[in-house]
Amino acid sequence: MEIISASNERVKGWARLQKKKGRDQRGEFLIEGEHLIEEAMRGGHVKELLILKGRQNPFAMEAIVCSEEVMRKLSSSVSGAWLIAVCALKPSAPLPRRRVVLLDGVQDPGNVGTILRTACAFGYDQLILSQDCADVLNEKCIRSTQGALFHLNWQRQDLCGAIAQLQEEGFTVIATALRQSRPLREVSAGEKTALVFGSEGQGIRPQVLSLCDQRARIEMDHFESLNVAVAAGICLYRFREGS
Amino acid sequence: MEIISASNERVKGWARLQKKKGRDQRGEFLIEGEHLIEEAMRGGHVKELLILKGRQNPFAMEAIVCSEEVMRKLSSSVSGAWLIAVCALKPSAPLPRRRVVLLDGVQDPGNVGTILRTACAFGYDQLILSQDCADVLNEKCIRSTQGALFHLNWQRQDLCGAIAQLQEEGFTVIATALRQSRPLREVSAGEKTALVFGSEGQGIRPQVLSLCDQRARIEMDHFESLNVAVAAGICLYRFREGS
Repeated sequence: MEIISASNERVKGWARLQKKKGRDQRGEFLIEGEHLIEEAMRGGHVKELLILKGRQNPFAMEAIVCSEEVMRKLSSSVSGAWLIAVCALKPSAPLPRRRVVLLDGVQDPGNVGTILRTACAFGYDQLILSQDCADVLNEKCIRSTQGALFHLNWQRQDLCGAIAQLQEEGFTVIATALRQSRPLREVSAGEKTALVFGSEGQGIRPQVLSLCDQRARIEMDHFESLNVAVAAGICLYRFREGS
Repeated sequence: MEIISASNERVKGWARLQKKKGRDQRGEFLIEGEHLIEEAMRGGHVKELLILKGRQNPFAMEAIVCSEEVMRKLSSSVSGAWLIAVCALKPSAPLPRRRVVLLDGVQDPGNVGTILRTACAFGYDQLILSQDCADVLNEKCIRSTQGALFHLNWQRQDLCGAIAQLQEEGFTVIATALRQSRPLREVSAGEKTALVFGSEGQGIRPQVLSLCDQRARIEMDHFESLNVAVAAGICLYRFREGS
């Protein structure tokens, strides 16, 4: 199959996936680049593969050959892409969970993606995002996950409800906070541990913070300010299972 | 003083600071935003303050009033800025050093800036960058430092020479590497410790790696891949003084 015109109806449909609204409506999203697509295939997410006319398909899956005009319209990069995959969200299976990360209003898609990548590297089971976090399926966020997106269970949920549910399951919920908190080295993980990180500017909202069981503070010397993805990296490493 | 035309000679000179070549030639750079400029003033870096006509100057320093056209030409943001500072590089004073970070070819200016910010937060004394690292005075890098740029001694240097010099001063030089390395928790800092991090794709170059005294590996469970700024955050926290 070949598509030449950028005003083709299917192309128009895919182009809607460049916005959050379109992704939410269709439960689909676009990704670019061989490495990312390979990870998505492994996770069983790829519905359609689009390839620039004249290029060799590196995958066993059949691809739709597209003109440069079509690829440019669908690519997030100004210079276009030669390989794009239309992916489907898969419903997350309920899972036994012992290590969970919660994000409260993290705004930067690069930070959300980097935290997801870190959680995956340290064997965390789930990432829960408040409704006002950056969209995980945002192109910049997907790129920052470096493919980890397809290997970690994630979902959007009201954090107050999520924390109550975790506590019912026996989780210790640890918040990171600068004030009224104990030094990180003095805080210990339980068998089931959940970590909460707040937004870049404001931190964790008071109503979420008040529900947490413990508050930990990363010990700093000067200039008390860390990027949220760096702070999360330090805490996720500290509280990973078996540490 | 007031400047209306974007083709004014001084404006043209400042505009050259948007490129690395211009910054290197003049030893000056541009920054935007009240918070960053405040930090730069505290560090004594600000030479000229430029303010959009009609806006109130929040600082005691006298400002040059500029037209919207001038501010737009000098701003890194499409929508322009209302406050810009021309800053001067200050020669780094030789300092007693006990904690040093070395970066080998880190490409992304956001990563370089975030690592600088983290090094500052954990009380490190110096950041040494190989010649092929992203420019610290790149606008994206400066933004990522969140002002820490003005509080940490940094310099570009050949890393092989820098490591030899550190070792002469009694430093233990620790490289992060996935292979032929010991788990991070088993590696201890000396009284004087230097940490080396490599580029996003390739890690540390073999000729640099071979000079290091120890190799540490961050223990991971799955998907062995961390963002370099996150990896640096974990190690910098682990080896900070007094930890």
